[in-house]
Order: sequence, then structure tokens, then C-alpha cells
Amino acid sequence: MRNLKVDSQRLWASLMEMAEIGALPHGGCGRLALTDLDREGRDPFVRWCEEEGCTVTVDSLGNIFARRPGRDPSRKPVATGSHLDTQPHGGKFDGVLGVLAGLEVLRSLNDAEIETEAPVEVCVWTNEEGCRFTPSMGSSGVFGGLYAPEEVLEVRDVDGKSFGEELSRIGYAGAEACGDHVFETFYELHIEQGPILEAAKKQVGIVTGVQGFRWYDVVLKGQDAHAGPTPMEVRRDAMLAAAHMVELVIQAGRARPPHGRGTVGHMRVLPNSRNTIPGEVHFTIDVRHPDPAVLDAMAAELLQAICRSAEQDSVDIETTEVTHSAPISFDESCVAAVRSAVERLGYAHMDVVSGAGHDAVNISRVAPTSMIFIPCANGLSHNEEERIEPEQAETGANVLLNAILDRAG
Amino acid sequence: MRNLKVDSQRLWASLMEMAEIGALPHGGCGRLALTDLDREGRDPFVRWCEEEGCTVTVDSLGNIFARRPGRDPSRKPVATGSHLDTQPHGGKFDGVLGVLAGLEVLRSLNDAEIETEAPVEVCVWTNEEGCRFTPSMGSSGVFGGLYAPEEVLEVRDVDGKSFGEELSRIGYAGAEACGDHVFETFYELHIEQGPILEAAKKQVGIVTGVQGFRWYDVVLKGQDAHAGPTPMEVRRDAMLAAAHMVELVIQAGRARPPHGRGTVGHMRVLPNSRNTIPGEVHFTIDVRHPDPAVLDAMAAELLQAICRSAEQDSVDIETTEVTHSAPISFDESCVAAVRSAVERLGYAHMDVVSGAGHDAVNISRVAPTSMIFIPCANGLSHNEEERIEPEQAETGANVLLNAILDRAG
Repeated sequence: MRNLKVDSQRLWASLMEMAEIGALPHGGCGRLALTDLDREGRDPFVRWCEEEGCTVTVDSLGNIFARRPGRDPSRKPVATGSHLDTQPHGGKFDGVLGVLAGLEVLRSLNDAEIETEAPVEVCVWTNEEGCRFTPSMGSSGVFGGLYAPEEVLEVRDVDGKSFGEELSRIGYAGAEACGDHVFETFYELHIEQGPILEAAKKQVGIVTGVQGFRWYDVVLKGQDAHAGPTPMEVRRDAMLAAAHMVELVIQAGRARPPHGRGTVGHMRVLPNSRNTIPGEVHFTIDVRHPDPAVLDAMAAELLQAICRSAEQDSVDIETTEVTHSAPISFDESCVAAVRSAVERLGYAHMDVVSGAGHDAVNISRVAPTSMIFIPCANGLSHNEEERIEPEQAETGANVLLNAILDRAG
Repeated sequence: MRNLKVDSQRLWASLMEMAEIGALPHGGCGRLALTDLDREGRDPFVRWCEEEGCTVTVDSLGNIFARRPGRDPSRKPVATGSHLDTQPHGGKFDGVLGVLAGLEVLRSLNDAEIETEAPVEVCVWTNEEGCRFTPSMGSSGVFGGLYAPEEVLEVRDVDGKSFGEELSRIGYAGAEACGDHVFETFYELHIEQGPILEAAKKQVGIVTGVQGFRWYDVVLKGQDAHAGPTPMEVRRDAMLAAAHMVELVIQAGRARPPHGRGTVGHMRVLPNSRNTIPGEVHFTIDVRHPDPAVLDAMAAELLQAICRSAEQDSVDIETTEVTHSAPISFDESCVAAVRSAVERLGYAHMDVVSGAGHDAVNISRVAPTSMIFIPCANGLSHNEEERIEPEQAETGANVLLNAILDRAG
């Protein structure tokens, strides 16, 4: 079978047009889930799909499905997609690449006047990032049977607004019950968000699985006191205690090379006054590993270590598990279809494990799934300087198109 | 000379009445400088002083002077005072004790129908705390010739409002040029804000001097990146770098027992998202010691140490000195007058060095000055649980009254 190719310039133009919605001063993008900017990104996407002859439906968690019909009515869709919502200081390509490459696949199929056996669908999953509303990947999580709808719809943001209210407000509370929609296959194209492909000079990462991760919220309570008169030896300094635990979290990641990860991304200090010893600190823990047994061990050891540290620093500690996402391996035949497409197209490639969570992890619970990575400059993501070249977007979209055709017939 | 005594119940009633203004749920007080609550604390104080027959004047930095006349027109006032503004989560006695004990001194002199040779004044210094507007002790600082008036008046809070604008807004921009007012002597009564007197079972601290302190603002810049895919060894994690520096600051305090102090009270993390490695952290340093040479050495060593640490952690560092307050020794004859009053009254006492900065430090630049401490429960201050007993307030006010009489004749 000859390799069909996408229109590189058309794909790049769509990426740049979407990037203007919520554009930030340093080149990035800020479209938090269910804000007006989220809607302003969704609406043009829906219109572009309809212009390609797709039927667009929306489910009860705001997930969008744009269907290009196939010849065989008994076949379920071969689907692809990702997310359009971003980090507060996000880039232009995280999630967006997967959505607009899917659109480019539909446009290329139309250009070539190809009729597929199975329908082909492009999807947008609501609130992948989990910044404004926890948990991340909440809507694909409901779709994949990980959460009940209410668990996600009822979560409130820091201003007290609920996911469900905001979803209705932006006009994307759809009719189809989330989870009723069935795929035959699901692929997700995404930027690597790490430096490995670039360092190895590979054009494509064939993603065989995803790291598991654990998120915890920690609250430390010591005692507020005056910075001047209070002798060092009687202090119950929650800032010092938190600093010791940051080191423990990073050590947990360093102790399991090359895949272990440990991060403290968020911290809040009270009362946060320069001449008062902080009596309270809230911080988050993010630990990751692709091996479930190792991830369990990392988490258990770290939780024990921070409890001992709290005792040594005379503070009280309360730890809550926020998210428990198990490592997964993707469907072997999907991975094989991607590998086959990459080899036919002649791209330099390697197998990789995804360091980040993706909607595909949740979809893999209900449909055969795999992912395709392209490199991004310096591995940067969750950063306005996130960058790819048009040729790289084209490469990823070509692999996606051919992997889809391999399935859809 | 017989010992004159204050009216303990009247003093306590005034303290409790003032505490209702800006009262907080856990028993504390929140009256930030130049807010409406600050005004609501000042107005009754002025009225109470006028009811005692005082002439009340206000200077251009909002400092209040309530004068009880003396017999000898050539004498300058023997003054006392402190501050009425509080920390965000402050207590009822920090500063307020010194002001209302001064008022109780005036009331007691009136009760006893005593005519002093020199006038007696009670003062309120604007914005001692330095929370809303830096620097702390700014208005006594202008009075003492440490700052030019504009330096303090032009500072803006986080909402962009200037000290000068807010001072006018609450109606305390007075006519007298700040610094023109002359004292013969100044005493300040204050809670210790530390645990030493209580632990030593002393009723009064004869304050011989004040610790110096240095405040710095530090900004660390690493690189925002995704917590999952970014390998540990390529990270430029500003949170980890800050954690290492918190330890260095605390060690700087611990390395100079018993008087050395090191505190990180304030920290701000960017972008502060749980799955993003923080690329930027802002934090504050507070180091203290009563010996100027030791304080210099502590500060110099610490600044070198955090620069080396920044290099090891691959982050950029920028350090700014915010305040440089030299240690001071109080006027020997003032200290002797306090000691004499304490011994005549028969209170258990010890000499102490103040661990906190006070307006008295600035006043000591232009008038003979000393301070009187009473213990506070568990040494807690800058904390809603700050607590003293009525007997302790009475003890301090009695010492103040007799030290003032010793001077005022």
C-alpha cells in the first residue's frame, strides 16, 4: 500500500490559528478548561470538522466526536484525538497537535477521495490538564470507566464554580451519556514533552506504555512565631520541615534511574510574612515510574520518610492521596500498526515509555489504544517555550494517517 | 519616693476594648497599617487621651503625640509609646500594650493629681509592622532620621496604593513635620515576644539593647518543565534550590547560639502547578544577632553559601538587601532608671537583649531611650494565641510609670 501524506502547510496553519486563542506574551497558550477561551478553541474546531463533512456529537462530559463515515455500517470508528485545554503557562502543541493532526487526517482522506471501511473519528477530551478542576484527564477518565460522571461534574474550582456548571455555561454539556460511545481503536499523537527523542536524534517515538504516577497533598503544621525573639531550638518551623521533604521527594526520583521521577510543583506557606516563622505549609508530591511494583515501593518509602522527617522537625503531617494512576502497556497490535507505518514511511524511530499521563491511558481501558510521539525542542513542555518544527508535525501526522488507514481499511 | 501604682482593671479593660477592633476568630487581631481598621483603633485612643486633658498632635507620617503638660516650660517631654497596627494574624498585645500602658500612666498621674516638672507624652508610631508597606518601623524611622519622608510616603502596597495616599485617606496626615518633635527621654514597654523571661520565671526584662537584623529578598530562576517526562538529571528545579537554601538560612541561625536567628518566612513559587517543575521561586531571608561584627559575618557567609548552592543546583540567583538594621545598646541612664524602678517595686527581673526590632531602636537615634519587657505565654507573638495575664500588664505599667516619674520629676 502506498503511503498517503498529509498537507504540512495546512496542518501548520491550523496549529497557528488555534494558538492565537489565549495567546500569551512569551509565545505560549493559556486556555484553561471550561473558561470562555476553552469554548473559543472548541467552536472553530467543530466548524472545521463540519466543513469536512463530519457529523459532530458531544457527550455529557463535553467530549467532542467528529465522525467521517465509512462504508461498512457494522464497523465501529477508528478514532484519534487529544485535548485542547492547556496549562496556565502552556505551549501551543501539548494536546493541540493530536487534535489538529486528526483533523488533517480527515482533510487528507477527503483530498484523496478515500472511502474507508470503518468510520474515522477525531475526538477532543475535556480538561486533560487538571489545573482548574481536578483530576487531570477527568473526562477521558469517565469515558474509560475510571470515574463516575458525578465525581468529575461536581468538583469545584478555587472560586467555587463546578465543572458541570461551567460545562453548561460554555455550551458543551452534550446529550450522549459519556462512555456510551464505542471505538474499535484509538490512537493519540502527542509531543514527547521530554528530551529523549531529540537527544537520540529520532523522528518518531513508538510508545509502548505510560508511566504510572501518584499525586499527594501534604499539610504540615508547626507553630507561627516571631522570627526575632524565638530561639532556634524551640521552633516548630513548617517551612524548614517542608524544605527537608522537598529533598526527600527529589531523592525518591533520583534513586530509581532512568525512569523514576519526583517533583514538588506547588507550595503554599502560611502566614507567609517575612518576619514570622511559618506555622503551616501545604505542598504537593508527584512521583512516577513505568513499573507498578517499583512505583508502589517508591511511594511507600517516600511516605514513611516524610513522616519520620516531620517527627524530627516537630511538625504535624497530614498526607492525602489525590491521584493513583497505574502504569500501563499499550495494545500490542496497535503498537505494531504504528511501527509498521513508521517503517514504511522510513522515519528514524525508537520505542519509548511516556513520562506524562495522557487521555490515551484512560481510553486504553475500553478500546485497543496506542500513542505516537514526536520530539519537541529541548524536551520543554508546560512552558511557553514549548516548540516543534512544521516538518515534525508533518511526520507525526503522516504516521497517524497511515496507522489509521491500516485499521480503517 | 513611694511607688505609685496603676489601675490594673482599667488598663485591662482598655486592652480588651481595643482588641475588639479587627478581632479575629482565634482570639487575635488584624489591624494592618493605614486600613480603616487602623483608623478605628487610632480614633478612640485619641479620644481617651483628650478625655484625660491631653493635647493631641499628629505629624506628617501619622505619628500621634498626646501631651500631658508639666510645670516647667523649658523641659522637653518624657515620652513613652509603641504601635497600634498589627500583623495579619497578630495578637492583642504586640505594640498595643505599650500604647495603652502609656495612657494608663496618664490616667494614674491624673488620679494622684501629680504635677510633673517635664511634660509626659504618649505616642503611637505608624506602621511598625511593615506588612502592608515596607519598611517596618518606617514612621519612627523618619522621626529618628533613618529615612527621608518621601522614602516612606511613596512606597506602594501590593494593590498599588501609596502610604501617603492611605495616610491621608484615613485622616492622619498631620501638620507637624515628622522629626521636628523633640523628646527628653523615651521608654517603650512591650511584650517579650520570646520564651526567655517565662522560662527564667522573671516578671520584668530590663532591656539593655536590641538585636540587629538583615532582610533579603531572593529570586531563583531555573526552568519550568513537565514533571513526568523530564529526567531528573537535566532539571533546573527552583523549588529544590530554594529548599537547600532554607536549610542554609536556618543553619546560619543555629551556628551562632544563643542569640543567632535565621528565618525564611515568605515564599512564592511559579507557576505553582503540581505537575510542573517550578522554574521560579521568590523567598525572604531574616537573620539576626545583637553583635554587629557577628551579624556582618553571618550575613556575608550566608550570601556566599546560597550563591554556591545556586550554582550546584543550576539556577540563577538574585539577592537584594531590603533592610539593614544595626544592633544597638540603649542609653545607660535610661536603663538605670528602669532598673531602679524595678528594684524599688520588688519585681523578679533579668537583663535581656530584644530579639525583635522596635520603634525604640529608631527613637534611640535622637533621644535617650530604653525598653521594658514583660513575659508572654510560651513566648508566642505574631500569632493569634499571643497571651499575657492582667497582672503582667499591671507589672509592666507600674515599672513604666515609676521610670517616667523618675525622669519627669
